[in-house]
Amino acid sequence: MDGHHAGPPSERTKVRRLPERAAYERERIEAVLDEGFVCHLGFAGRDGRPVVIPTTYGRDGDTVYVHGSPAAGMVRSLRGGLDASLAVTLVDGLVLARSAFHHSINYRSVVLFGVAREVTDPEEKARALDVIVDHIVPGRRPALRPNTPKEIQATSVLALSLAEASAKVRTGPPVDDAEDMDASVWAGVLPLALRPGEPVPDVANRQPVPEHVTAYRRPGRD
Amino acid sequence: MDGHHAGPPSERTKVRRLPERAAYERERIEAVLDEGFVCHLGFAGRDGRPVVIPTTYGRDGDTVYVHGSPAAGMVRSLRGGLDASLAVTLVDGLVLARSAFHHSINYRSVVLFGVAREVTDPEEKARALDVIVDHIVPGRRPALRPNTPKEIQATSVLALSLAEASAKVRTGPPVDDAEDMDASVWAGVLPLALRPGEPVPDVANRQPVPEHVTAYRRPGRD
Repeated sequence: MDGHHAGPPSERTKVRRLPERAAYERERIEAVLDEGFVCHLGFAGRDGRPVVIPTTYGRDGDTVYVHGSPAAGMVRSLRGGLDASLAVTLVDGLVLARSAFHHSINYRSVVLFGVAREVTDPEEKARALDVIVDHIVPGRRPALRPNTPKEIQATSVLALSLAEASAKVRTGPPVDDAEDMDASVWAGVLPLALRPGEPVPDVANRQPVPEHVTAYRRPGRD
Repeated sequence: MDGHHAGPPSERTKVRRLPERAAYERERIEAVLDEGFVCHLGFAGRDGRPVVIPTTYGRDGDTVYVHGSPAAGMVRSLRGGLDASLAVTLVDGLVLARSAFHHSINYRSVVLFGVAREVTDPEEKARALDVIVDHIVPGRRPALRPNTPKEIQATSVLALSLAEASAKVRTGPPVDDAEDMDASVWAGVLPLALRPGEPVPDVANRQPVPEHVTAYRRPGRD
């Protein structure tokens, strides 16, 4: 997301040869996936043309479980799963440089590629739905009754492996050209983060606000 | 993004027949596009498989200009543009219901479909780059020198029309099943919004923080 520092065109990730680099990369990928909770899923629609939809997800080890209702019709019509790409993007700040050209965004993103399989086993699906709720609101799940078999059946879940994943990160201050350094314009970073506001109780709520709501924060965020 | 209230599977938008509905829908689409500044672009990669990448964008009337560097190689290799889908998603809050099943996200999203054309005319490209900067940081552009022809050439811009667009919105409190209303669990909404922190000046900065930074907010947000 930076004119000058943009990497090469996105292509499917190759498994890296250097184990150390791979471990670091894997840690970075997990951190991004664990902080985010909305992903964008891309796949070919019924007519073969690209479709991108937002949905929620959770991570369980090597598997990303995607709340698949919006793509459910699609998945059912495909044998062997849905060839897909999934992106999670966290916006960390606006990078204000001394030229328009060097303006950028500080961000962390992960892109996965793979075949999204529809989760049909009721036990895995029940667990996947718990993973998603617990991912979005850590500590929430124990406060709730278990899903009924009917509820589990009424929800679609897709599973995507972390096998083909890559992370991209931009951090730090603007990088300006030497000849722009004396321009009389403020340069720096305006941090941005998804922050909680004041909880709004449901009109029929009679319960105190629990700590998983008052102390809500994403993993990795203050 | 809600098990129970999820709409039908996403499909390409049909132009609506009712002009009033269309005008309302158009307003809603523009509001989402104008508040967001990061989109996810989906297209078929070199091998024909789906790719989703995050990038920045700006809107100029009926056209969304996308900072296209990550997809540039892709675009150049295709005659007649890139068949694409573009999604912008704004997260407004977590909807905490009395059952896991009815948990949801309050959000507003727009999905566009169309052929992304690479902007090659230098004048349109210069304007598009200004549109993108001004979209991300309103008021910033006048403080900066114009882009040089070299800078304009070094950046890729894609243009997508608003002709095929649709918006999806979820707002309001959780909707619970009658039999869960007495569950002893807090129910309500935890609002979330992308909020600015304290500006971090570049180490070489000698200028005061301008109002477009101190008073930064997205259109439509407090």
